Amino acid sequence: MDTIKIIEVKEDVRANNDRAAEALRARLHDAGTLLINLMSSPGSGKTTLLAATLDRLADSLAIGVMEADVDSDVDAHAVAAHGARAIQLHTGGMCHLDAAMTEQGLHSLGIDGLDLVFLENVGNLICPAEFDTGAGKKVMILSVPEGHDKPLKYPLMFEVSDLVIVSKMDVAPYFDFDLKELEKNVRMRNPNATICPLSAKTGEGMDAWCNWLRAAVNDWKK
Amino acid sequence: MDTIKIIEVKEDVRANNDRAAEALRARLHDAGTLLINLMSSPGSGKTTLLAATLDRLADSLAIGVMEADVDSDVDAHAVAAHGARAIQLHTGGMCHLDAAMTEQGLHSLGIDGLDLVFLENVGNLICPAEFDTGAGKKVMILSVPEGHDKPLKYPLMFEVSDLVIVSKMDVAPYFDFDLKELEKNVRMRNPNATICPLSAKTGEGMDAWCNWLRAAVNDWKK
Repeated sequence: MDTIKIIEVKEDVRANNDRAAEALRARLHDAGTLLINLMSSPGSGKTTLLAATLDRLADSLAIGVMEADVDSDVDAHAVAAHGARAIQLHTGGMCHLDAAMTEQGLHSLGIDGLDLVFLENVGNLICPAEFDTGAGKKVMILSVPEGHDKPLKYPLMFEVSDLVIVSKMDVAPYFDFDLKELEKNVRMRNPNATICPLSAKTGEGMDAWCNWLRAAVNDWKK
Repeated sequence: MDTIKIIEVKEDVRANNDRAAEALRARLHDAGTLLINLMSSPGSGKTTLLAATLDRLADSLAIGVMEADVDSDVDAHAVAAHGARAIQLHTGGMCHLDAAMTEQGLHSLGIDGLDLVFLENVGNLICPAEFDTGAGKKVMILSVPEGHDKPLKYPLMFEVSDLVIVSKMDVAPYFDFDLKELEKNVRMRNPNATICPLSAKTGEGMDAWCNWLRAAVNDWKK
């Protein structure tokens, strides 16, 4: 069986972006606003999870949401209805956000008084993992139907994430999904990631996720 | 609510690729080998569907499979066990295949005597839609758990596909998934696409898919 290796030259683009991301992160730190880069495949339940999270946290934290999408604005309307300051970012076909686009989004959103901003990145397990947006924390969502083998196939996404959310746990009985096997696969890529299985539908695991968020916001403001 | 539009300049890259893709398609037509570009999100069931398809067609058609992946070679081994000539393409982090990479893959695979070659593209609903690989047909898979709203969020993928497979129909009762709504959303993007709901697990819809493939191969050889 042959293996073909193809390398794309993109180091310059990445280095410039890394500098912009570091500068943005420092400014967000000074402002006391934690930016979370939320990444996943299409259809992993990002928007549903955000809505359920806002229902639990919007009374105690001031939260903003930037929904990035290739097209449409269904998501921003949905989360705004749950108490967040929300904007939609259209990427014009691009498969990820970089630090410059994120900064442009934050400028439009306005971070004054916000404790926490979620950046809902483009639904994609590859490109968003490669570009630092300037976020303080990176969170990825893997939904149960996608399968426990995904850390083997999309290693970088799992390597860069601080927290791995396993969403749609309520449908686990209907899939060949092994949480222990997933944990083993995640650990191979990232021994330090926190793994948080949950269901926005039943509420299972939502307390652990919200506690993680509260602690992350408190740490960021220190 | 603000909307931010960001445009990436990539017309030159695309135009060069389009020419290479046209040339490759013409050569495949002369050789009588139909190349199918199979695209989907991660975890949509591409590999499981291919295995079930090979079990039904490998006796009557000579089939090759090129599995593109950012990393790992689990898929190529899996499909080779079901009677296909198979190779793995590693993209070195890239989120799509272009015509040059596809040609390199076909050269390694060897198309002599093959009626049909599946190119399992990188799991991603954005980038693969933008790059013509030289395939004769484009097929996308949307799995039930991803939701019926996906044509609204990833319009280009649905616009370019000749056939939309709706996979994992066996779990439809456990999700808020409306096939009629999906069909309406697909039609908005692409009035001509064939929609094929199926389950590789129960076999539902597999005959329709295999019949579509047989007819496409016959058309290609005319």
